[in-house]
Amino acid sequence: MRTVVAKFGGTSLADAGQFQKIKCILEKDPSRRFIVASAPGKRFPDDIKVTDMLLGCYQHAKNGEDYEKDLNDIKNRFQDIIDALNVDFPLSNEIDIIRKHLSEEPDSQYMASRGEYLNSQILAAYLGFTFVDPAWCVCFNEDGSLDSAMTKRAMSAALRPLKNAVVAGFYGADSEGRIHTFSRGGSDVTGSLVASAIQADLYENWTDVSGLLAADPRIVDSPKSVEYLSYRELRTLSYMGASVLHTDAVLPASNLGIPINIRNTNSPDDPGTTIVRKLPEGKIKYPVVGVAGRLGMSVIQVEKVMVSDGSGFSAVMLDILRERNLPFEQCLTGIDTITLVIRSDLLETCKDELMEEIKTKLSPDYLGIKENLSMIAVVGERGTETSDANVKVLRALDEAGIEISTINQGAGKLNLLIGVPEERYRDAIRAIYASIDSSLNEAQ
Amino acid sequence: MRTVVAKFGGTSLADAGQFQKIKCILEKDPSRRFIVASAPGKRFPDDIKVTDMLLGCYQHAKNGEDYEKDLNDIKNRFQDIIDALNVDFPLSNEIDIIRKHLSEEPDSQYMASRGEYLNSQILAAYLGFTFVDPAWCVCFNEDGSLDSAMTKRAMSAALRPLKNAVVAGFYGADSEGRIHTFSRGGSDVTGSLVASAIQADLYENWTDVSGLLAADPRIVDSPKSVEYLSYRELRTLSYMGASVLHTDAVLPASNLGIPINIRNTNSPDDPGTTIVRKLPEGKIKYPVVGVAGRLGMSVIQVEKVMVSDGSGFSAVMLDILRERNLPFEQCLTGIDTITLVIRSDLLETCKDELMEEIKTKLSPDYLGIKENLSMIAVVGERGTETSDANVKVLRALDEAGIEISTINQGAGKLNLLIGVPEERYRDAIRAIYASIDSSLNEAQ
Repeated sequence: MRTVVAKFGGTSLADAGQFQKIKCILEKDPSRRFIVASAPGKRFPDDIKVTDMLLGCYQHAKNGEDYEKDLNDIKNRFQDIIDALNVDFPLSNEIDIIRKHLSEEPDSQYMASRGEYLNSQILAAYLGFTFVDPAWCVCFNEDGSLDSAMTKRAMSAALRPLKNAVVAGFYGADSEGRIHTFSRGGSDVTGSLVASAIQADLYENWTDVSGLLAADPRIVDSPKSVEYLSYRELRTLSYMGASVLHTDAVLPASNLGIPINIRNTNSPDDPGTTIVRKLPEGKIKYPVVGVAGRLGMSVIQVEKVMVSDGSGFSAVMLDILRERNLPFEQCLTGIDTITLVIRSDLLETCKDELMEEIKTKLSPDYLGIKENLSMIAVVGERGTETSDANVKVLRALDEAGIEISTINQGAGKLNLLIGVPEERYRDAIRAIYASIDSSLNEAQ
Repeated sequence: MRTVVAKFGGTSLADAGQFQKIKCILEKDPSRRFIVASAPGKRFPDDIKVTDMLLGCYQHAKNGEDYEKDLNDIKNRFQDIIDALNVDFPLSNEIDIIRKHLSEEPDSQYMASRGEYLNSQILAAYLGFTFVDPAWCVCFNEDGSLDSAMTKRAMSAALRPLKNAVVAGFYGADSEGRIHTFSRGGSDVTGSLVASAIQADLYENWTDVSGLLAADPRIVDSPKSVEYLSYRELRTLSYMGASVLHTDAVLPASNLGIPINIRNTNSPDDPGTTIVRKLPEGKIKYPVVGVAGRLGMSVIQVEKVMVSDGSGFSAVMLDILRERNLPFEQCLTGIDTITLVIRSDLLETCKDELMEEIKTKLSPDYLGIKENLSMIAVVGERGTETSDANVKVLRALDEAGIEISTINQGAGKLNLLIGVPEERYRDAIRAIYASIDSSLNEAQ
């Protein structure tokens, strides 16, 4: 029998009405056996997410301030759901346990995790599924990093005997039982770990959009959505800021080639976006899947005659960065030049020192820094088999009078990376989107 | 008074007729006071250069074979010039000295240098100039590297008292008096050292072409010649194989901002190409100066998810190359990828080992190598202020159906580096040249 892992995000679990939608979705396909649930998200734009309420409560407790009102508000969010769905769940007992924790030694990660913990139990009760607490099967090391091998084993052991289950997202625990959370959006990661542990056929990620859009809808008017893309393409788009899925959620699923399907709980008949290793037969792969970018970039330019004649120079440059633990986004060496793209915020405190060190260690003929740049990625594994898309993109930028600071396309040809001034970023995204519109792989 | 250093190449000194042309050139402008001379080059396509005759002679002596015929042929080449110009020069004595050297412990560098040594003395006698032997003023270290500071001092000391002189090109000596030569074409370097030592106003480099061509004439039909270009542009073109001037000849002149003028001995009224730091007033700088490329390149592609998130990965990669003393032509890091362009001949003996080391040290998700590539540089300091030239170039390659493996334009924006398959190299050069033809800075 096929097994599908379905992760539901915060807006998909914001209130009783959303719980009912989820029940319909699950009833429609009984292979959706393992559910990963987030804490209740926003019901309306100005609403507060339960996780934020919990952290506010923690802060008050930590400061020795009164937190009874916070606790009551949190309780009410869940009580509303329980009442509307007529679920049997001992909420008062659970709130008492949290109250006790707060009165002793309040811990922010423990508190942040309680939204998923409670919501998943309520959902499990509503669905008649088994609740699985990830404190037992998402295994963290003491330092807060994930122990992937241990997690896989424990998760597999916990889930395989079950017909179906709801696993709370976002957190786990170390061997001392101390709760650790992933970074925000981490329920995506839990979902991917569950899919990987039970070798699911499909990992569905249910959210409030009908898949990934080919461009940021705050910049481009109604961008097309993407039907299929590869893990690598998704990773590039995520890296560049297309925030549809937690970055760490890709690897566990992609390692096993498990397709990830981004779906919309509020529009469950939309096919959404599917992330695959290989396209299904009969599907056409369009050259470009999308465009995304990041602001706040700086470019350091080092020139020295004869750099190209030995491998030492660039290695020394990268050693300088490594010793400073300063990550860089791109490094381009050409004839006599090295160009480094680095996040401006990381340079803020060390820029002068770094420039001085480069001067001393490399004695460059020219050393310069350009700030307030943005980096744009035009992503598509097949977009660059011919140069057609590249030509379109560069021509569009040229016609829009946008100066390009760097152009980078490595042999992987997964993407074309272009640097443009920050103040032209939105224009650039629009110009590029318009130029590739016809090359886009649109969801039907 | 203005001082010009004029270096004459092998074909400019191949026979007596060429010597006469040089005399006319020098008489036309008496500021041409310091001459650097090569050995006699080819008089006709199938001719043998004197330096090659000398090396053949050395080889025979080294192997214990008879070299009297070689020595006689060499003597005849010079005797023809001496006789035709009616110069007083003790050629037989000089040949006896070489014969004595060969009978004792023949040295290839000493032998290779004798063409310049003899030719320069004959030219000096013909012109009535002082002969200066670079054995005293081009100072090498024992390891064969040039001692630039010592050379500058000795050269300046030797030349400043003189009204005019002919300096033999191509060689010098270490402190033991042992002769060392530059690599082939090294008389260009001598000329640049002379210009730098006496702080000349101009370094003329007389050859058999009317300056630098915007593309290889063996590939493109009658390419335009370039009137002005910058040292950096020249350096890039030279690096990419436009072999008009020895690579090491640029630095000494460019350090002092001495313009280098490439001229044609056989067409002395042509203005040739001038390499300058800054364009003279009133001259328009065209966006592109030329296109050149190199065959025999390989591209190594390393992919690993999350490479971009830390600076360590690329540094380790470059350390591997540095420890192997393996220079690379380009390094491009993008999101999750590193692309390295390395000369295929350098990989020949170590490819498998290198790939194995990368696998072990970096555990990449993907590691691949693409061979039989060429790298093309479209060069022009201003070519990339707008993207116009880039668009033209990429469109031209696209229309010619040429697959591009890498695109690299750093912040210096001096050039656009493009990788294409070797078998399409000539097509690519032609397509690019045609696309930029109208953007070229043409000598009038």
